Amino acid sequence: MAGNSFGELFRFTTWGESHGPAIGVVVDGVPSKIPLAATEIQYWLDRRKPGQSKFTTQRRESDRVEILSGVFEGMTTGTPVSLLIRNEDQRSKDYGEIKDLYRPGHADYTYDVKYGIRDYRGGGRSSARETACRVAAGAIARKVLGSEVRITGYLVQIGADAIDRARFDPAEIERNPFWCPDAEAAVRWEEQLTAVRKAGSSVGAIVEVVASGVPAGLGEPVYDKLDADLAKAMMSINAVKGVEIGAGFAAAALRGEENADEIRMGNDGPRFLSNHAGGILGGISTGQDIVVRFAVKPTSSLLIPRKTIDRHGNETEIVTKGRHDPCVGIRAVPVGEAMMACVLADHLLRHRGIYGGR
Amino acid sequence: MAGNSFGELFRFTTWGESHGPAIGVVVDGVPSKIPLAATEIQYWLDRRKPGQSKFTTQRRESDRVEILSGVFEGMTTGTPVSLLIRNEDQRSKDYGEIKDLYRPGHADYTYDVKYGIRDYRGGGRSSARETACRVAAGAIARKVLGSEVRITGYLVQIGADAIDRARFDPAEIERNPFWCPDAEAAVRWEEQLTAVRKAGSSVGAIVEVVASGVPAGLGEPVYDKLDADLAKAMMSINAVKGVEIGAGFAAAALRGEENADEIRMGNDGPRFLSNHAGGILGGISTGQDIVVRFAVKPTSSLLIPRKTIDRHGNETEIVTKGRHDPCVGIRAVPVGEAMMACVLADHLLRHRGIYGGR
Amino acid sequence: MAGNSFGELFRFTTWGESHGPAIGVVVDGVPSKIPLAATEIQYWLDRRKPGQSKFTTQRRESDRVEILSGVFEGMTTGTPVSLLIRNEDQRSKDYGEIKDLYRPGHADYTYDVKYGIRDYRGGGRSSARETACRVAAGAIARKVLGSEVRITGYLVQIGADAIDRARFDPAEIERNPFWCPDAEAAVRWEEQLTAVRKAGSSVGAIVEVVASGVPAGLGEPVYDKLDADLAKAMMSINAVKGVEIGAGFAAAALRGEENADEIRMGNDGPRFLSNHAGGILGGISTGQDIVVRFAVKPTSSLLIPRKTIDRHGNETEIVTKGRHDPCVGIRAVPVGEAMMACVLADHLLRHRGIYGGR
Amino acid sequence: MAGNSFGELFRFTTWGESHGPAIGVVVDGVPSKIPLAATEIQYWLDRRKPGQSKFTTQRRESDRVEILSGVFEGMTTGTPVSLLIRNEDQRSKDYGEIKDLYRPGHADYTYDVKYGIRDYRGGGRSSARETACRVAAGAIARKVLGSEVRITGYLVQIGADAIDRARFDPAEIERNPFWCPDAEAAVRWEEQLTAVRKAGSSVGAIVEVVASGVPAGLGEPVYDKLDADLAKAMMSINAVKGVEIGAGFAAAALRGEENADEIRMGNDGPRFLSNHAGGILGGISTGQDIVVRFAVKPTSSLLIPRKTIDRHGNETEIVTKGRHDPCVGIRAVPVGEAMMACVLADHLLRHRGIYGGR
Repeated sequence: MAGNSFGELFRFTTWGESHGPAIGVVVDGVPSKIPLAATEIQYWLDRRKPGQSKFTTQRRESDRVEILSGVFEGMTTGTPVSLLIRNEDQRSKDYGEIKDLYRPGHADYTYDVKYGIRDYRGGGRSSARETACRVAAGAIARKVLGSEVRITGYLVQIGADAIDRARFDPAEIERNPFWCPDAEAAVRWEEQLTAVRKAGSSVGAIVEVVASGVPAGLGEPVYDKLDADLAKAMMSINAVKGVEIGAGFAAAALRGEENADEIRMGNDGPRFLSNHAGGILGGISTGQDIVVRFAVKPTSSLLIPRKTIDRHGNETEIVTKGRHDPCVGIRAVPVGEAMMACVLADHLLRHRGIYGGR
Repeated sequence: MAGNSFGELFRFTTWGESHGPAIGVVVDGVPSKIPLAATEIQYWLDRRKPGQSKFTTQRRESDRVEILSGVFEGMTTGTPVSLLIRNEDQRSKDYGEIKDLYRPGHADYTYDVKYGIRDYRGGGRSSARETACRVAAGAIARKVLGSEVRITGYLVQIGADAIDRARFDPAEIERNPFWCPDAEAAVRWEEQLTAVRKAGSSVGAIVEVVASGVPAGLGEPVYDKLDADLAKAMMSINAVKGVEIGAGFAAAALRGEENADEIRMGNDGPRFLSNHAGGILGGISTGQDIVVRFAVKPTSSLLIPRKTIDRHGNETEIVTKGRHDPCVGIRAVPVGEAMMACVLADHLLRHRGIYGGR
Repeated sequence: MAGNSFGELFRFTTWGESHGPAIGVVVDGVPSKIPLAATEIQYWLDRRKPGQSKFTTQRRESDRVEILSGVFEGMTTGTPVSLLIRNEDQRSKDYGEIKDLYRPGHADYTYDVKYGIRDYRGGGRSSARETACRVAAGAIARKVLGSEVRITGYLVQIGADAIDRARFDPAEIERNPFWCPDAEAAVRWEEQLTAVRKAGSSVGAIVEVVASGVPAGLGEPVYDKLDADLAKAMMSINAVKGVEIGAGFAAAALRGEENADEIRMGNDGPRFLSNHAGGILGGISTGQDIVVRFAVKPTSSLLIPRKTIDRHGNETEIVTKGRHDPCVGIRAVPVGEAMMACVLADHLLRHRGIYGGR
Repeated sequence: MAGNSFGELFRFTTWGESHGPAIGVVVDGVPSKIPLAATEIQYWLDRRKPGQSKFTTQRRESDRVEILSGVFEGMTTGTPVSLLIRNEDQRSKDYGEIKDLYRPGHADYTYDVKYGIRDYRGGGRSSARETACRVAAGAIARKVLGSEVRITGYLVQIGADAIDRARFDPAEIERNPFWCPDAEAAVRWEEQLTAVRKAGSSVGAIVEVVASGVPAGLGEPVYDKLDADLAKAMMSINAVKGVEIGAGFAAAALRGEENADEIRMGNDGPRFLSNHAGGILGGISTGQDIVVRFAVKPTSSLLIPRKTIDRHGNETEIVTKGRHDPCVGIRAVPVGEAMMACVLADHLLRHRGIYGGR
């Protein structure tokens, strides 16, 4: 209700500020008897970890996760799994000189209005640091889903430069620092981001996340449609400004006969001749790939001076000197994957609860 | 949990199938002592009502709403407001011949997989008829918000044809059957839709909904961000495939210094020099206009034959002869407005509950 | 959140005032493909119906239930089941003369403080009339639970006069107007209640509800223990002032070795040598009978003058002339059964959702 | 949903096993700008701490609480407050010999059935150790309620020996190790418990918790009545088997004219001439003292051999040699107070959210 929890049956609650002693997440609704080791969670956290290339923030965090509860002798027990990550590199002095200023494009002003308090240590709760907890929860969600469900995220656009779908190569995604499935685009992006970084500027991106192996039947109409929950999940990620499913906004320009995916019989059930629906019809999974895209705005922390005011209403300019991501969309990839996993795990349990099966 | 409710403190639950005896909604969390008459709800229902032009379904429904509880001597009492709308024109014979077929692009297949049951009477619960209940709930939400909050929706694109923002005229919205703010686009759309309808085809659309007068401070980070809840609300509307806030997907192509809205001091608080944020920063309202857009896919009910299968796995073709909307996006406008009102009312109560004030 | 819903996965929402046009309930989370007819719900409603003996209120209501949604061709569809019961005998004139008075022991004063409104028509939402909706929801819950789960309620005490457990005869329960399992007590109660009624007074009661055939494993520790949810369910019934499980308050006076139920092996699993636990250990069902008791206070509507004040703070006396129950505990029996069914159905779905099985 | 959270707007989630590395609680919905120091939480934890007299378990825990988030410069920020308590004395070897046995009266069997896993380290999640987290959450709830609301708990009965209300002295409560308001009963209880402890037995108790200064109007009818939520809260505490409000079970034996509290005008509003209602009418607070009692069963950990079975179905006997409370009801007093505070804080925020004011 106060907004720090996500999910219904598979439900996690995160806590912690970017410059406090630690951050963490409590995951409730994890079925028992699932093998779970800290290293499995660590694997996914390491993919999101800052400082892995010059294109992400240089904040140094080992992001080492500790399991404090819910696992006994290597197996989940059915009780809440509490995970703790210590903050190590909370250089809050970096933020001293913007202590009273509202950074344009940041949540500084709105948090101050809402809470009447200014936690000036780097965004506090609104920092992207919180997303480490989402990735940790997502690691557990993947275990709940089982290995048939495979979730893959990647960037399809940085700035105005999109990938060429004809050159899409899944193997490429892990080979460059941009989770880019198009090798040529990756080369261009490297140049572009190097220039952006040197200019003290930033640039946006579009992330695509695909889940395959999802059984048909997940999603609760009318208000908890699978796509509605995915939209909420993705839009809740820092800096996200748009979410689309399948054909998405492009569907507006299609004719009904182009858009509606025709059906034939396959070997093990219906086979759709296209996937404009993004794997969801009427809010319920069809068994096809679930395809979600979301747009990430350019980071608002810039070396370029911007007009703003301080808490007392004085007009001034601001330059944000801290360590920041030239394209925060890069690190949003593992976060989008994690949120996909969490939404699917929740809906898997909810479907099973009400309708039985699997 | 089973998906027929929306909101937390201001919470409504809808029920009813398109071809059952009635549909309805129960609104809980309505503050007491708000003047409320059935005519006020009827006003908004009438705007959504089918059959008002040749560009929406010819189903004839008076959509007359009855207040069954929660109002005493013209005032809300604080108890649940139950609203009932009788179905009048449920010609289910229209659907007889597609009884066993899965209509491509519809929820027929997924409902059958999920529930193991085929309510072939025109979509049952997945029909857009359900959105009348949303509009009714939205009418109450508007009363909770008060008259300072003004919510306006309109179409900005039909098919591939977008409005010209330079010709934007709010007064125009009510003058044409498309909620179109650009008089010239309205003329073009009339031609386009006439052709689409004659071809037995359909076309998508993009709807924009703007709320002005929303106080700063609404929205609960991290997971119940105002924009996250708006994304869920809009994506839960039938046929919606994408949602964006402010600059939305276009933000991906902007530089940080273009996107971050600069701040100056105005007469009564901060004044933003632009609104790429769409009135929301860090998930909390800034006091600027809240701007949401969503894409509606073309209706999948078509007179053009499409490949499909029946419940028994036989391959066949289908033509949907019922009464349908050539552009379902038109009737989505009042629904989008209603969902905006409901999300804002819920967050207003939640903010007041935890943080007091207003 | 505003308090008119109960349950999580199996969740119902009730609405309606005692003297409005109708009351009703929307049940969400009903699995599909359960045969359900209005007559099955009517059966349970008829057991709660007022006016069946001179010991319950003489209000005349046929309490005829209409199914408005969620059932198609005799089977649940998985969509919300909406039930409507018209109010027929809403003689609100009876209440005219107490319009501005706060009846002692009633919710008149607290509703007025909370809502700032005085719905003087016989209790409005706080009337026991609401419990008809609980019974209707309970009828559906029983279908969800299946026939192995049997739920039986009865009175074990009226006023200070308790049954003799040695004379407990289940068959007796349906033979007298008090749901009394002890034929001799039933005779005494008849005398006692006749006198109470003639004196214009009222008397309290203790109800016991037993569920047998409940599988072991239901209940979600720590806060949603099965007994915690039962306690909430029963305490939410009008006029209930106490709830206990198994040995209940008497457990305080037992030694540990008397209270802890010893275990032996039975033919199909553990066999407990006693049931002080009331079928619940650590908040989870043991497979034994679930045993709940609750105390119902005497009705506060009396022909005996009582001191009170009016809305304007003037001191006065009040006599409540309406039609009332001399022992409201009698009609609480089917309500307690219904709440037991709803709690069990909800926990059955929740357990199945998270942990699979059955 | 999986049962480890409590409350709606003021909502806390606890985690941790009795013999894991730590336990903790995340409190969401804490308003900002409340001064909060770890020492304030520690004060209440110290009252619950084991090992403070020979009548509570000899487990040695300093129960030192760490605030990990949600507080900045001594004030709450409106973000989740995460509290951590390290387990220090988790001598799990004590439990080795009962590893495969189901302790009668404990949750061993039901957890095993539910989760298919046996965390034999002293109760794991079902241990009373979890209640430390409730007390910590309650400390924050008290701050949310403010100093006008005073909550006091005490024992009114140990075994079959009740206090004499005529000798009730609030000052006495803090003077003996039993939170006993009757000095003479405290002397008797000391004797009784010494004998019980020496016999390796245990005994139950009845706790009463009173909240004064609670404003009228809190509580959400129909299902989230203040008393219903209190019943759930108290019944969720380990070993509790019964809950009653005001006159409670004794109300069954009263006449309506004895039970209904008459009303006169006082200096600042209505004045009730008695409090059989326990401060709640129709589920809403009246402004009188809120009075709740709950029964705690005798601890099931005993030195007296009891019949049981092991996981493999073999019949055997068990003696529990660990460190245990001869009367676990004593340590339930601060826990009951904490749950009262949490329920009231939640309802305060909910009422304010929906109906405004205070």
